Amino acid sequence: METAGAVRTGIIDCDVHPSPRSMDEIRGYMPMPWKDRYQGGGRGFYSNPVHGSRLDAVPPGGGPAGSDPGFLREQLTEAYGTAHAILLPRAFCNMHPDPDYGTAIAAAFNDWLAETWLGEYNHDGLFKGSITVAHQDPQAAAREIDRWADHPHFVQVMTDSGARAPFGQRQYYPIYEACERNGLPLAIHPGTDGMGVNVQPSPGYPTRYIEWHTCLSLSFQAHLVSFVTEGVFERFPGFRVVLVEGGVSWLPALTWRMDAEWKALRSEVPWLTRPPSEYVKDHVRLTTQPLERPDSDKHLLNVFEAMDAGSVLMFASDYPHWDFDSPTHAFPKMPDELRERIFSENARSFYGLG
Amino acid sequence: METAGAVRTGIIDCDVHPSPRSMDEIRGYMPMPWKDRYQGGGRGFYSNPVHGSRLDAVPPGGGPAGSDPGFLREQLTEAYGTAHAILLPRAFCNMHPDPDYGTAIAAAFNDWLAETWLGEYNHDGLFKGSITVAHQDPQAAAREIDRWADHPHFVQVMTDSGARAPFGQRQYYPIYEACERNGLPLAIHPGTDGMGVNVQPSPGYPTRYIEWHTCLSLSFQAHLVSFVTEGVFERFPGFRVVLVEGGVSWLPALTWRMDAEWKALRSEVPWLTRPPSEYVKDHVRLTTQPLERPDSDKHLLNVFEAMDAGSVLMFASDYPHWDFDSPTHAFPKMPDELRERIFSENARSFYGLG
Repeated sequence: METAGAVRTGIIDCDVHPSPRSMDEIRGYMPMPWKDRYQGGGRGFYSNPVHGSRLDAVPPGGGPAGSDPGFLREQLTEAYGTAHAILLPRAFCNMHPDPDYGTAIAAAFNDWLAETWLGEYNHDGLFKGSITVAHQDPQAAAREIDRWADHPHFVQVMTDSGARAPFGQRQYYPIYEACERNGLPLAIHPGTDGMGVNVQPSPGYPTRYIEWHTCLSLSFQAHLVSFVTEGVFERFPGFRVVLVEGGVSWLPALTWRMDAEWKALRSEVPWLTRPPSEYVKDHVRLTTQPLERPDSDKHLLNVFEAMDAGSVLMFASDYPHWDFDSPTHAFPKMPDELRERIFSENARSFYGLG
Repeated sequence: METAGAVRTGIIDCDVHPSPRSMDEIRGYMPMPWKDRYQGGGRGFYSNPVHGSRLDAVPPGGGPAGSDPGFLREQLTEAYGTAHAILLPRAFCNMHPDPDYGTAIAAAFNDWLAETWLGEYNHDGLFKGSITVAHQDPQAAAREIDRWADHPHFVQVMTDSGARAPFGQRQYYPIYEACERNGLPLAIHPGTDGMGVNVQPSPGYPTRYIEWHTCLSLSFQAHLVSFVTEGVFERFPGFRVVLVEGGVSWLPALTWRMDAEWKALRSEVPWLTRPPSEYVKDHVRLTTQPLERPDSDKHLLNVFEAMDAGSVLMFASDYPHWDFDSPTHAFPKMPDELRERIFSENARSFYGLG
C-alpha cells in the first residue's frame, strides 16, 4: 500500500465493476448463518436479455467478466491509460427484506474488496474502491462506513438506486452523517429498483428490461429531487453525491424545473436558502456512461454547455458491462480543456486523488 | 352548436380548466348511490401549499376559479385572442379503488361539461372538451368514449397520470382502441399520482407537494417509455397521445436514451420496427406549460431545436391554476413561424380544428 499517495496521471474511470470469481469467494467472508443462505446477486428479475457483460471481457482463464485483475488491467486500464479505476462491486444487498442479511452481504463484499482488488492486486494504487452499504439498516451502514474510512483506497460509499423511499428522507441520515464525518461522497449506482422489497422506478412495475433500464434514470432524478427538497445538503454541508450510470442529458431540464418549483413553492421548504440548481452544482457530480448520443453532436454539446459539464461530469466506462463507453469512441469531439476536466480533473479533485 | 364547424383564428390554448360551481353541480348528474357518496376531488394529499389557483381568477360573483364562463372569457380568451380553449375538467376519478365509482364520476363530469361549457356557454364554438375516463375499468372507459365520440365539441379523451401500472400495458388497450376507432387523441394530465390506489411518481412516496409536483414529469416520461416499448403505436397506428403539463425540456434526453436502449436491446421488443424517437414524433405531442425557463434563453431554444419544437409543442396556459403560463410572457423571443406553430398551427392540425 506504499503507493497509495503516489500521483498517477491519465484517465480516471469512475465506474469499473470487479467481480468475485464465484459466490463462494464472497461466502468465505460471511459468518453463519449468512454463509449458508447466500445465493448471489439480484439476477432473474429484469435481467438483461442479451448479455450482462461484454463477451470479450470474459477472462481467457475463465471466470466471470471483471473477475481477473490482470486481464482487466490489460483490456481496460493499460489499453486506455487509466490512472485510477474507481471500483463499484455489485452486491445487490439492498433488495432483501432482512436488514441483517443485507448488512452481512455488504460487509462481506467490503472485506473481499479490501483484501483482493484494494490489497493483493493493488501494488500501484491503480484501484480505488467503494464501501458498499445496505440502506435497510442506516445505523449499521454508518458503522460499516466508519469501519473502512481510514483505508487508503476506499474513496467513497456506494448504494444501489433501488429503495423503498426517496433518498432525501430522514431514515437515511445516519449514512449521510457518516459520509460527511469521514469526508466520503456517496455514489448511487443503478440496481435493485423494483426488485425484492424495493419500489419500481416507474408508475407501476415495468414489463421488460428495456423499459426498466430506460426508467432507471428517472429513479436517479427522483432521488436527486428528494435530496434537494428535503434539505439534505443544508443539514450536511460537507455531504457530496455522485450519480453513477444514471444518465447525463436530463440534468438541465430537471434543475430548470426544480428552480421554477422552488421559486413558487419555497414556503414549503424554508430550509432551502438557495435555488436547487446551486445545491446540485456544489454537491453533486454525474458520471458520463451511458452517454446519450443524438444524431447531432451539436445537440449534445449544447446540453453540456447548459449543465456546465466541465464542472459536473466525470468519465466512466462501466467496464465490463454490455453498455461500456469507450474513452476513445463514446464522446463527440470536444475542446481539450473540457475533455481533460471530464476525463480526469473533475474526478481527481472530487476524490482528492492528488 | 351551429358554429361548431366555423374556423376561429388565434391562439389555441390546450390546457384550460373549467370548474363546477360546487360539488352539488356534479352530484346532479350522478345516479344513486354515487350521488350520496360523492365527496369531490382528490385534495388533501400532496395539496398545494400556496394556492391551487391564481387569486385573481376567482370570479367577481363568487365560486371557484374557472367556474364562471363569462369571467373566464374576459380574463383569458378575449384578453389573449384565444381561438379555442381545450377544456380539461379535474375529476380525479382515477384514484378510487372502486371502478364503478370512478366510472360514475367520469360520466357525471362528461354530462356536466357537455350540457354547460360545451353546450349552453358555447354559442361560438370557443370551447372544445375532453372526455374524462376512469382507467380502472378500461371496458367501461371505452363505452364512455363511444357515448360522446359524435359530439361536435369533444376533441379528445383524457386521463390523469396517476395509475397503478404504466400506460403501455395491455389492460388499457380497450381505451386506446376506442380512441383510435373514434379518431380521438388521449390527453394525459398530471394528477392522482400516489393518491388513493395509485403508485407514487418516484421511488417511494414523496414527502411534500414540491417534490411530488417536480416528479410528475417523471411519471410522464415513464408512461411514454411504456407506450413505446410495449408497442402501443404499432398495435394502434392511429392512436395519438398528448402529454399535458408534464414538462417540455426532458424530451430530447429521453428520446436519445430510448433510441440507444433500443439499438442494444431491440431483440426484447421485436414489434418495434423503428427507433423510439420516430414513434414519439409521429404519435405524441407535448403542451408547453409549465415551460422551463433557464437563465439563458439560448439554452431553452437549443432544446426546442433538439426536440423539433415546431412539430411537437402545443401552447397551453393551464388557466386558472397557480402556475399559469401567459401567452405574452412565458416564452422567450422566437421566430414568428415557430411561434405560430406552437401557439396555433400544431394544435389546429392535431385536433382537426379547420
